[in-house]
Amino acid sequence: MRENVLGLSVVTASGEIISTGTRARKSSAGYDLTHLFVGSEGTLGIITEISLRLHGLTEAISAAMVNFPDVQSAAEATIQVIQMGIPMARIEIVDSAYMKAINAYSKTSYPELDTLFLEFHGTRAGVAEQVQMFDEISQDFGATGFQWAEQEEDRNQLWRARHDAYYAGLAVHPGYRGYVTDVCVPISRLADCITQTQADITASGLYAPVIGHVGDGNFHATIFIDPDDDAMFEKALELDKRMVQRALDMGGTCTGEHGIGMGKLKHMRNEHGDGAVDAMKAIKTALDPQNIMNPGKVIDC
Amino acid sequence: MRENVLGLSVVTASGEIISTGTRARKSSAGYDLTHLFVGSEGTLGIITEISLRLHGLTEAISAAMVNFPDVQSAAEATIQVIQMGIPMARIEIVDSAYMKAINAYSKTSYPELDTLFLEFHGTRAGVAEQVQMFDEISQDFGATGFQWAEQEEDRNQLWRARHDAYYAGLAVHPGYRGYVTDVCVPISRLADCITQTQADITASGLYAPVIGHVGDGNFHATIFIDPDDDAMFEKALELDKRMVQRALDMGGTCTGEHGIGMGKLKHMRNEHGDGAVDAMKAIKTALDPQNIMNPGKVIDC
Repeated sequence: MRENVLGLSVVTASGEIISTGTRARKSSAGYDLTHLFVGSEGTLGIITEISLRLHGLTEAISAAMVNFPDVQSAAEATIQVIQMGIPMARIEIVDSAYMKAINAYSKTSYPELDTLFLEFHGTRAGVAEQVQMFDEISQDFGATGFQWAEQEEDRNQLWRARHDAYYAGLAVHPGYRGYVTDVCVPISRLADCITQTQADITASGLYAPVIGHVGDGNFHATIFIDPDDDAMFEKALELDKRMVQRALDMGGTCTGEHGIGMGKLKHMRNEHGDGAVDAMKAIKTALDPQNIMNPGKVIDC
Repeated sequence: MRENVLGLSVVTASGEIISTGTRARKSSAGYDLTHLFVGSEGTLGIITEISLRLHGLTEAISAAMVNFPDVQSAAEATIQVIQMGIPMARIEIVDSAYMKAINAYSKTSYPELDTLFLEFHGTRAGVAEQVQMFDEISQDFGATGFQWAEQEEDRNQLWRARHDAYYAGLAVHPGYRGYVTDVCVPISRLADCITQTQADITASGLYAPVIGHVGDGNFHATIFIDPDDDAMFEKALELDKRMVQRALDMGGTCTGEHGIGMGKLKHMRNEHGDGAVDAMKAIKTALDPQNIMNPGKVIDC
């Protein structure tokens, strides 16, 4: 998303309104304030307007789902597809635990296997070619049940299963709440990371199905916990901590898309090192000397 | 290029070495220091290592050139191609003045017309389809002489003409030097901007052929001037100033890719406004309090 942000209007700590970026696709005029403010979680200023780069709808869109014998195979197929440069519009994993929950919640009868949900955008010939290449690669990793949808209604139905996942997970244990983890690793390490994470979840005894934007190397285990069970919450925190450490050890990040807030403040120095965090802190202090912009978040000022 | 930079090692003003970014494709862990340092021209720190995102070579590559009756038609064809979402790997304009210079310099016999140089990347079917769509669109704008090259040797020969342009321009008036301008505007304003610029060049009496990365809305007039002729240099500066103002009036930038340095410092407040430049200045002071990193460039500290 970030790379589609061309410019911003921002209200600064001193109450001034500033503009960053231009409507041109590229510029080398000074510091890139736009991408400094994007993802700063309101700690440097409040974004009030965004100029986005628009993309036309493509001629053809196909959605598809395909099942794998295990999460590792699904992740390895993903790595190969991305490394071959097939321009996937979306490639998402939903593990067997989530597929089971979705069937129960949405009264569907999808195979309860580790599944990739896919979307292909392009010209008609381009999409057909991508679908064929994807199909060939996924078969090398034991994929079965490849089904695809071209009509908008059919595509929406297929994606509904993916979007229902969180609610389906909640419905498995009524009264539980979801604690969402969010790591991102280099694509080449995705299969290792997701496989080790699943083994860790199994060993923990927690109910934590996995879902993720695996085309980016980003995935989430949603740990469903009883809000009255402090020991279970402790266990979830420990599992999350191990997930983050595993991602960092693989050259990844403690948060692919959810941000730091307060909850992940403790990982900042581990991920970036003292020098980089101190540089962020110096920037925070320079732009918000009184620490009035969303204080206590992102940077431990 | 910027969006392919995943992370950096940077030596800061205090002599510390910091790391920014990770090897993961995305992260939302704190401020985006990576893109703050990229394009900061050494004023915030010295970049010593860069982690880049790699892209595989595509199955097929085609290069092509095609002639237009005038720069406006070439720019309008470009706008349409980009707005239709045809994924052009390269789309570059070389105006008739430059084509004439290239023929004289490189002993070639290309039509001396406003010309687009193109490159298409993708699968075999995808490239063939893109070439066909491009051909159809360009014909609507009066294009002629579409020729394309698939073999690497032929592609290189075609691109050599493009890359020789600057030296070809220098050879037109031996002893002259090139003063390169560099503006970038929103794609939708490209035809207006380039047409008005060419009329301005004609009126100025200067020799200033136009070349550009028009797929990004970015182009250059290279003003060739006699280094001993102060009046000519003054005229060139005035032409450049009008080009910048025209680009800014159209929502563009004073520099698409060459940067600010000292020469374009005077445009910074005009392009960004006082608030944004003061924010940049605050960041510069925070990260380099003694102003020892490439002082006097980018920011008027």
